[in-house]
Amino acid sequence: MPPTPTIRREGDSVVILDQTLLPYRSRTVRLRSLDDAASAIQTMQVRGAPLIGATAAFGVAIALREDASDARLARVLEVLAATRPTAVNLRWALDRMRARLAPLADSSRHEAAWAEAEAIRSGDFETCTAIGHHGVELLQRIAAQRSGPVRVMTHCNAGALATLGPGTALAPIYEAHARGVPVHVLVSETRPRNQGLLTAWELREAGVAHSLITDNAAGILLARGDVDIVITGADRVAANGDSANKVGTYLKALAAHDNGVPFYIAAPFSTVDFDCPDGARIPIEDRGPEEVCVIRGESESGEIVAVRLAPEGTSAPNPAFDVTPARLITGIITECGICPPGALRTLCEP
Amino acid sequence: MPPTPTIRREGDSVVILDQTLLPYRSRTVRLRSLDDAASAIQTMQVRGAPLIGATAAFGVAIALREDASDARLARVLEVLAATRPTAVNLRWALDRMRARLAPLADSSRHEAAWAEAEAIRSGDFETCTAIGHHGVELLQRIAAQRSGPVRVMTHCNAGALATLGPGTALAPIYEAHARGVPVHVLVSETRPRNQGLLTAWELREAGVAHSLITDNAAGILLARGDVDIVITGADRVAANGDSANKVGTYLKALAAHDNGVPFYIAAPFSTVDFDCPDGARIPIEDRGPEEVCVIRGESESGEIVAVRLAPEGTSAPNPAFDVTPARLITGIITECGICPPGALRTLCEP
Repeated sequence: MPPTPTIRREGDSVVILDQTLLPYRSRTVRLRSLDDAASAIQTMQVRGAPLIGATAAFGVAIALREDASDARLARVLEVLAATRPTAVNLRWALDRMRARLAPLADSSRHEAAWAEAEAIRSGDFETCTAIGHHGVELLQRIAAQRSGPVRVMTHCNAGALATLGPGTALAPIYEAHARGVPVHVLVSETRPRNQGLLTAWELREAGVAHSLITDNAAGILLARGDVDIVITGADRVAANGDSANKVGTYLKALAAHDNGVPFYIAAPFSTVDFDCPDGARIPIEDRGPEEVCVIRGESESGEIVAVRLAPEGTSAPNPAFDVTPARLITGIITECGICPPGALRTLCEP
Repeated sequence: MPPTPTIRREGDSVVILDQTLLPYRSRTVRLRSLDDAASAIQTMQVRGAPLIGATAAFGVAIALREDASDARLARVLEVLAATRPTAVNLRWALDRMRARLAPLADSSRHEAAWAEAEAIRSGDFETCTAIGHHGVELLQRIAAQRSGPVRVMTHCNAGALATLGPGTALAPIYEAHARGVPVHVLVSETRPRNQGLLTAWELREAGVAHSLITDNAAGILLARGDVDIVITGADRVAANGDSANKVGTYLKALAAHDNGVPFYIAAPFSTVDFDCPDGARIPIEDRGPEEVCVIRGESESGEIVAVRLAPEGTSAPNPAFDVTPARLITGIITECGICPPGALRTLCEP
C-alpha cells in the first residue's frame, strides 16, 4: 500500500496524492474549495471509481462550509456530478450525500457532510479488506500446490491508488503478502494511459515482487505457463456477469481461457448493475486520439515530459473499456464472497 | 510504399534506411563491413524477416571483399546467423548464400555474393507482389459485400519497410489501393517497439487511409464489428500452420476467432519451416527490459528523445514473439496462393 493515503481530511480541507505526477513524483495537493475538488476529479489527480466517489463526497463537505442552504447543496452536487460523465461510484456517492444531507437543517449539514464522507471512506476500506480476505484463499490454494511464488497477472490499476483501502484486484495480493504467501505480480502497462505504472509503483512501495510487461506479452506468458491466475478489477458488472473493465482486459481473459488459467474479477458488489442484463448494454466511453499519440515519461534530466509518438491529426479510435463475457470469467470476488459470474444474484442477497 | 528503398547496393557497400529513426526521421546509413551489417540487424536498423534475410545476404557480399576463403565464409555466416534467433528468413538467406558460394573458387565468391544478394532482393519483390495479388482477392470479396472501405486490422510492420517489395501483410492492401478498392487499415501500435508507427508512416506516405490503435483496443474493436479481416505477417510458420509473429498477434487471433472475423497470415513460402512440426518448437526471442521501460518519441521541440516509463532495474520480461495456433488461422497467404494452415505442404510443391 502506498505510504501516503490517497485522500485524508485536514481541518476544513482535504489532502490528496496527486496521481497525475505518479509514478514519477509522490506529491500531495490540498483541496480547499468546490472548484479544487471538481478539478481534481476532472484532471484525474484522483482516479479509480471508489476514490472518485470519495473525493466527490469530501468535496461536498468542503463546499458547504460557509453556505449549506438547499440551493448551495443542489449546486454543489450538480458541479461534482458533471466532472466525469461515466463513473458510477461518483453518482452513487453524490446520491448518498444528498440522501443524508437534504433532510437536515442547514446548520447541521456541514459537519454531517464530513461524517458521511468519512463513512464512505471507511466503508470502502472495509469492502477492499473483505475482498482481500476472500480472494487470498484462491492464492493460498495455488501456493499449496506449487513451489515458488504465486504468479498473478493483473491489468490497469485496481489497487490502493484507486480506492480508500488496499484496492480490489490487488487486495488479495496485499493480503497474501501480509500472510507470508509468496506472490509475484505481472503488471501489464495498460496503454494508452499506462495505469500499470501506478500498479508497479504501489507494489514497489509495499515491497511486493512484481514485473512490468507490455499488454502484448500477456498471451505468450499465459501460453508458456508463466501465470497461475489473472485478477482484474471491473468498472461495471452486468447482471449476467459480463464485466466492463479497462480496455485490454478482454484479450487477457481470452488468453487465460485458451490456456486453462483461472480469470477472476475483483470488485465491490456495488459495481454489479442488475438493471443491465448483459455486457452489450454497457456503454463504452470513447476518448480522444491524443492519449494514443502522446505519451508521458521522465526525461534523462528527471523532468516529466510528454513525447509524441504519432503526428498530430492521426486518426486514433480510443475506446477506454472493453467487455469480458461471463463465459471467460472463472469467478467474481466481492466483499460478500466469491461466486461464478452467473450466480451474482444470490451472493449478497440481504 | 516508402519513398526510399529499404536497402540498395552502392559500390562495395549497401545503403539502408535506418528504421530506428522512423517514423520521425527518414535517414539512410551506409554499411561497409561485416560488423556494420551484423549490428544493423541486431540493433534493428533493419527489421522484418525478409529485410533481415536480404541484409544478411548483402552483409556476406560486403564481408567477402578482401578475404573470401572457406574460413572467412564460414565465420561470416556464423556471425550473421547469431544476430537474431527467431526469424527463419535469416537462416534461409544465409543457407542460400552458403549453397551458392561454397562450391565456387575463392576468387569468384565476392562478385557471386553480390549477385546472389541481388537475386534474393528481386525474388522478395516478386514474392511480395504475388502475395498482394493473391491476398487482394480476399479484400475484393469483402468490398463486394459491404459499402464503405474494407476495414483491415494488422499488427506490427509487415509492409514495405519489412521487405524488399510492397510487404507481406500490407501487400494485399497496397494492391487493393492500386485497384481502387477502398481500404481502411487499423494499425496496432505494437508495444514495446511500436512498429505500428512504421506501418502508419508507410501507409501515410502511400496515401492509404488508416487509424492507429493501442494493442489493447483490438479486442473491443473486433467485438464491436469494426473490423472485416485481420492480416498479419509471420516470422516462422511451423509445418502444421502454427505461426510465430510479433508478440500480441496471438491475442488478436483469439479475439478475431471469438468474433468470427477471418484471420490471415501473409508470408513468403520460405517462412514455412517444415523441419519444425508445430509452434511449441519455435524458439521465442526474449529481449531486454529497457525496451519496455523506456519509450522513444518526438519532443515538443522536434527532437527524438527517449523517456523513461518505469525505474531502471524494473523487472520486465520481454518476449518478442508469440505463437498463434493454426486453429485460430483462417488461411495463409503466400506467393503460391492461399491455403488453410493445415494444407501448407501441398501449396508450393514443385
